[in-house]
Amino acid sequence: MTDILEALRRRLGADQVLVGPAIGERHRVDFSHENPCMPLALVRPATTRDVAAILEECTRFRQRVVVQGGLTGLAGGATPQAGEIAISLERLTGVEEVDDAAQTMTVRAGTPLAVAQQAAADAGYLLPLDLGARGSCTIGGNIATNAGGNQVIRFGMMRNLVLGLEAVLADGTVVSSLNKMLKNNAGYDLKQLFIGTEGTLGIVTRAVLRLWPKLPSKVTALCGLRGFDEAVTLLHDLQHRLGGRLSAFEAMWSSYFHYVLDHSSSLESPFDERFALYALVEIEGTSHDGDRAELEAALVAALGAGTIADAALAQSERETKTFWAIRDAIGDITPTLQPLLAFDVSLELGSMKAFLATLDAEFSRFPDPVTNLVFGHIGDSNLHLAVTTHSARDLERLCEIVYGTVGAHGGSISAEHGVGTLRRDYLRHSRTAAEIELMRRLKRALDPNGILNADRVLPA
Amino acid sequence: MTDILEALRRRLGADQVLVGPAIGERHRVDFSHENPCMPLALVRPATTRDVAAILEECTRFRQRVVVQGGLTGLAGGATPQAGEIAISLERLTGVEEVDDAAQTMTVRAGTPLAVAQQAAADAGYLLPLDLGARGSCTIGGNIATNAGGNQVIRFGMMRNLVLGLEAVLADGTVVSSLNKMLKNNAGYDLKQLFIGTEGTLGIVTRAVLRLWPKLPSKVTALCGLRGFDEAVTLLHDLQHRLGGRLSAFEAMWSSYFHYVLDHSSSLESPFDERFALYALVEIEGTSHDGDRAELEAALVAALGAGTIADAALAQSERETKTFWAIRDAIGDITPTLQPLLAFDVSLELGSMKAFLATLDAEFSRFPDPVTNLVFGHIGDSNLHLAVTTHSARDLERLCEIVYGTVGAHGGSISAEHGVGTLRRDYLRHSRTAAEIELMRRLKRALDPNGILNADRVLPA
Repeated sequence: MTDILEALRRRLGADQVLVGPAIGERHRVDFSHENPCMPLALVRPATTRDVAAILEECTRFRQRVVVQGGLTGLAGGATPQAGEIAISLERLTGVEEVDDAAQTMTVRAGTPLAVAQQAAADAGYLLPLDLGARGSCTIGGNIATNAGGNQVIRFGMMRNLVLGLEAVLADGTVVSSLNKMLKNNAGYDLKQLFIGTEGTLGIVTRAVLRLWPKLPSKVTALCGLRGFDEAVTLLHDLQHRLGGRLSAFEAMWSSYFHYVLDHSSSLESPFDERFALYALVEIEGTSHDGDRAELEAALVAALGAGTIADAALAQSERETKTFWAIRDAIGDITPTLQPLLAFDVSLELGSMKAFLATLDAEFSRFPDPVTNLVFGHIGDSNLHLAVTTHSARDLERLCEIVYGTVGAHGGSISAEHGVGTLRRDYLRHSRTAAEIELMRRLKRALDPNGILNADRVLPA
Repeated sequence: MTDILEALRRRLGADQVLVGPAIGERHRVDFSHENPCMPLALVRPATTRDVAAILEECTRFRQRVVVQGGLTGLAGGATPQAGEIAISLERLTGVEEVDDAAQTMTVRAGTPLAVAQQAAADAGYLLPLDLGARGSCTIGGNIATNAGGNQVIRFGMMRNLVLGLEAVLADGTVVSSLNKMLKNNAGYDLKQLFIGTEGTLGIVTRAVLRLWPKLPSKVTALCGLRGFDEAVTLLHDLQHRLGGRLSAFEAMWSSYFHYVLDHSSSLESPFDERFALYALVEIEGTSHDGDRAELEAALVAALGAGTIADAALAQSERETKTFWAIRDAIGDITPTLQPLLAFDVSLELGSMKAFLATLDAEFSRFPDPVTNLVFGHIGDSNLHLAVTTHSARDLERLCEIVYGTVGAHGGSISAEHGVGTLRRDYLRHSRTAAEIELMRRLKRALDPNGILNADRVLPA
């Protein structure tokens, strides 16, 4: 009797079906570093047809698979579970086309985000998705997790950039909808099934992405604020005054901002005073002088109104980079924050302050001190919390408190990182039983044998 | 034995279950005016709970229903079929909330678009969906059909404006996902199931819509062009120069433009010369003088480069209205275009010229002359064709030619009007067998008894 590995070797060639030590260590776990596990085998398809062949055989053998892109996910979704075959899309790469008339790019799923960004830039366009993992994360992973990042306030999540998609269903059926048109209501918009569903309903193999004209002007400022209400006022003021040019509005609470500065020899605050909150704002447009003058005028008005206490307009590319370095320093400080609980949550802007106050009160009741560094994309309703304590026994309780408080305030347990394996037991805080049952219904309809990224996203 | 009407009367009250002459004539047909049919009964729910009760009973009795909003659809989707119960959402109306922190609006599905637009404006915001039927069409219908309109190039289709949704499934289950957050990856994005699926997977009862800051400045121009290639160049030039401020780019071919002027006593061209194509462009921003100067400079440059042959910048609100009146005159001229075939198709911008040339060649082979007036939102890949001929016997053949040519050029048989009953037999021109089978699989999963808007969207 043929087994699944023999069947796959026959379809793909023996050199693309790896077992044992030939499977690289990095395929054992994603960037969460939790629960590493060696898969039964690693297969490396180079084409959509290969992916279809793999899933045909896996359906025949009722063989579970896990899909891997750049393995930069933080939710455990791409980490193998015992007995799964890992399908790595690292050979399914390449920008197939930039269409100047349609202003679109057709990309294979395994293409790293940075490669796609560069190809867009080389052709004179902007691919407006950007996140720290850009060098390793892949377009397929960005689609499967509906990636966010810093420019969502202006351009939306990855979902908003995808015009067309090709995906392979669990039984090996290829569904090719490589649409390039902005308007297309010819029946159900099937691509939505594969965006943000973390590979549980199908494997994305190719996509058509919308490109934007490059924006030649960028102006960046860092503002010091007395509190959260002022940050909301500033956000709304800038949105009204700048009419859609605002491309980033990143908030850093004092806890985060000063922790970063205290742990860095190269970064410093442009302000003498310490503030309760800092806002990093950026506008992108077509006229550097005009944009700069308008942002400056907006900040002068905000100073006059008491909305901000101080502001520093970046005077050089170097200064812009310094401001962003403070925001992006979370990667550098995590070694000092062990054991770390990293949260990626959403709250309605109107509930964010109460949410944080509740957490402060809850954390203060712990016998051991709890550190909670808060920052995020508040214009997108998205907060990141880096929580740590010396007592390992408190970690689970801290998780329950954060996700429970998110739920009590109508928020989301995952803003942009996804659910994977690590958050699926908390999904009930953000979704009703009816919503979860409808998700299960979809899963059963598209993957009746449960072979695709099983035991992920949906609660056990 | 109880029948379905008795059961509904018991649940809703007898006065909300109408039969016979009590059902208004207007509930017999949508704005396509094709195949009017009196429903078995008309029910008028006022709450989500009412809708749930209706669907519970209809599932129990395996009773088919048709959902009705403002009845302005053009695809026959809301027109009853024999034996169906019509569910009108005309009592499920009202703007429940404008949330200033989140910049969202929560609206009941039966609310007319114009009412929602006005409520947004009254609160200082823009709800950036607009279409001719604004006074009658409803938010629920806009969502069910994923409505488009004139501002899609900047703000996207209705799908892009919906942050949260409440819908009732075929069995009466209420799925409430009234999310207000820009980022929310807590499991599958269920609202996508109900946007653009034309009421075949559930009935939308409420929605949270994203609002934008009002844009105080609007500058409009009409351009005369020598051909299609120049229109594409102008579109791309303006997108690059104006960095996202371009909010409309409407093309009118000579056939359409001069037919309108010839049939209107009040409208006239601002140009002495006749051009092959006319482009109505509009930018919206925050500085009237600055925006005007920038659009003027862009048009002067386009004149210098030969991209446009002439241009008229609207000098007054009255002139802006005149330019738009030419674009919107299609409603006034249709009585002179009988029998009318109205097409709403999408083509990749790179294929649009060849598509139109093929149609010209095909139409010229008919013994009786064929009139084809062409206009549309070419920045959104969307063309509208108004086709007529004196020979009624040619109509079906003309339809086959247009949709066949759309398919041959990789286009969509429905850009923004939806599929309904009138276009479902043409869906195969734009969707593969695998795509249509996946749509059917979704339909079976969500509506196993086939009671919701049956025999619509998906081919027989």
